[in-house]
Amino acid sequence: MPVGTLATVKALDPEDLIAMGAGMILANAYHLHLRPGDDLVQEMGGLHRFMRWDGPILTDSGGFQFFSLATLRKISEDGVEFQSHIDGSRRFFTPESVIGIQRNLGADVIMQIDHVIPGQSDENSSRDASERSIRWAARCLTEFGKPAREGGTPQQALFPIVQGGIHTALRKEAAAALTAMHDWHGFAIGGLSVGEAKPAMYEMLDVLNDALTRARPRYLMGVGFPEDLIESIRRGVDMFDCVAPTRMGRNGTVFTTTGRLNIKRAEYRSDALPLDESCDCSACARFTRAYIRHLFVSDEILGIRLLSLHNVHFLLSLARAARREIIAGNLDAWSRDWLSRYNSKAPAQ
Amino acid sequence: MPVGTLATVKALDPEDLIAMGAGMILANAYHLHLRPGDDLVQEMGGLHRFMRWDGPILTDSGGFQFFSLATLRKISEDGVEFQSHIDGSRRFFTPESVIGIQRNLGADVIMQIDHVIPGQSDENSSRDASERSIRWAARCLTEFGKPAREGGTPQQALFPIVQGGIHTALRKEAAAALTAMHDWHGFAIGGLSVGEAKPAMYEMLDVLNDALTRARPRYLMGVGFPEDLIESIRRGVDMFDCVAPTRMGRNGTVFTTTGRLNIKRAEYRSDALPLDESCDCSACARFTRAYIRHLFVSDEILGIRLLSLHNVHFLLSLARAARREIIAGNLDAWSRDWLSRYNSKAPAQ
Repeated sequence: MPVGTLATVKALDPEDLIAMGAGMILANAYHLHLRPGDDLVQEMGGLHRFMRWDGPILTDSGGFQFFSLATLRKISEDGVEFQSHIDGSRRFFTPESVIGIQRNLGADVIMQIDHVIPGQSDENSSRDASERSIRWAARCLTEFGKPAREGGTPQQALFPIVQGGIHTALRKEAAAALTAMHDWHGFAIGGLSVGEAKPAMYEMLDVLNDALTRARPRYLMGVGFPEDLIESIRRGVDMFDCVAPTRMGRNGTVFTTTGRLNIKRAEYRSDALPLDESCDCSACARFTRAYIRHLFVSDEILGIRLLSLHNVHFLLSLARAARREIIAGNLDAWSRDWLSRYNSKAPAQ
Repeated sequence: MPVGTLATVKALDPEDLIAMGAGMILANAYHLHLRPGDDLVQEMGGLHRFMRWDGPILTDSGGFQFFSLATLRKISEDGVEFQSHIDGSRRFFTPESVIGIQRNLGADVIMQIDHVIPGQSDENSSRDASERSIRWAARCLTEFGKPAREGGTPQQALFPIVQGGIHTALRKEAAAALTAMHDWHGFAIGGLSVGEAKPAMYEMLDVLNDALTRARPRYLMGVGFPEDLIESIRRGVDMFDCVAPTRMGRNGTVFTTTGRLNIKRAEYRSDALPLDESCDCSACARFTRAYIRHLFVSDEILGIRLLSLHNVHFLLSLARAARREIIAGNLDAWSRDWLSRYNSKAPAQ
């Protein structure tokens, strides 16, 4: 899922996303609550209509933003008190209120509020955060089950978020508790890619691959880079979101099948090749590295747009290729080949 | 002509321009000489191929940039010595060298180098600059007539630039001298919209409407706003370029048929109307003022793109409408109605 934090996938037009076959996008309840306000989005007909995106949308509840953005955060059993990162105003989110916010936004898939902690937290802190997240899942579910307010809201699916840090027992306990609680439409996996080592993340995915039903999609939150997608898909993950393709695109970093490159480097000054020779995105179909480098050196917005477009297309194509290989029963061999090619050059930056 | 100073119309994709029916665009020889270098553009196959624009391109020679951007400018009969506004390097442009630069770029229509002075200059300074510009036109023409260097250059048309400030006699003399010099493909009108009063500009256009042949296009450089387009078209001008639609778009200003508005104003917070109800651009066909305001308030690039797109579309549509009314023999009545509607509201900013 390309990330449209503030109801826009940065530097792209909804038409670009349709053209590259994006199925579903993500937006952030925390950000949209603060600006322009979920009440305004509801007044404008909901998120789909507001941003003119007819495909499915998933909203994140804010758990990660409390962890990464908010200041003076105070977490209690009742909820999270924090100061807005925009204007410093005091806010209080509860499991019930984040359901209300996400109902206002009207996304197709919404998330429980969860308690995110650093990736290397010890077992006690991790247990504490995981068990609180499970209790909050139950409160979200209760609130979610209440009849919608007058005027009605669209049909939505609620995902719980499996926490538990890098502790196998905690991950298993969380998966079991959430599975026993309700027949959810899917499961989100949180608290990974937040500072822990890669092998620990892969180990937790292996654990959850067994602990979660295969009959429901698993959504790994905030991941990732091309190599992370492949390793996680191999461990049973179905859905991803990550700001990397657009954020790195804005900085001049390009995903290619032979590794990353930075388009601002002098070596691309008169390079007549496309960003990636094996890519069929609309940037690679038309423009040279030399032209896109010129746009970046000159601070032209078209440069940011073209790299964002290419990088998002790159990850969508990668996920589509992985799906094809799963169906063909060839995921393992394909993954090895793909990663070996991707890692064949030393990183260019 | 939408302006693509650095080989990109700011915040737009060539596909956007094609979709809105832009016939011809402008790029700046001065800027492209400094960055990425006209030699590099030539090496990459010329401007059309470099920026992937298959339609006609006009390049400006730099006369206006010496006036507006360059520092430590020293103008002599031989040419213009200046410091680059980017890195302070010393450069020297002559009538001959600007033809060489524009041959490297390979635009379809190229400009002589001219001597631009402030709009309210007295008759003596204006005569001096105008007569130098005429002598420079002759030198450009001689250089233009020389066989292209090995490798060949595309067929190009060279326009002289009529100067003369706000002095009727000087404008007539310049038009007569240039007309006598050569059977040009067209005439550019320079030194207007550079600080003089509007009535003085319109008076000079009236003078040139009689003094220049109707058999060749007249291109009014650096103009303009909607009202300027209409007043100038009424005085026989055929071609325009101006950065206003994209520059104002980046600042949140929107052209509408009832005047300008600034999308950042609080009054548009929940406004479900399009930018301009009578516009059929792809921004107005899809998005509300409320959404685009949200994009601007949140510093999202899509906001800049949508306003740039709308404003450029607005001027192109206006020019197309004027052409239809000329053919229908109804330009005067239409102009009055259009301007009266455009000026009906007090300016919103």
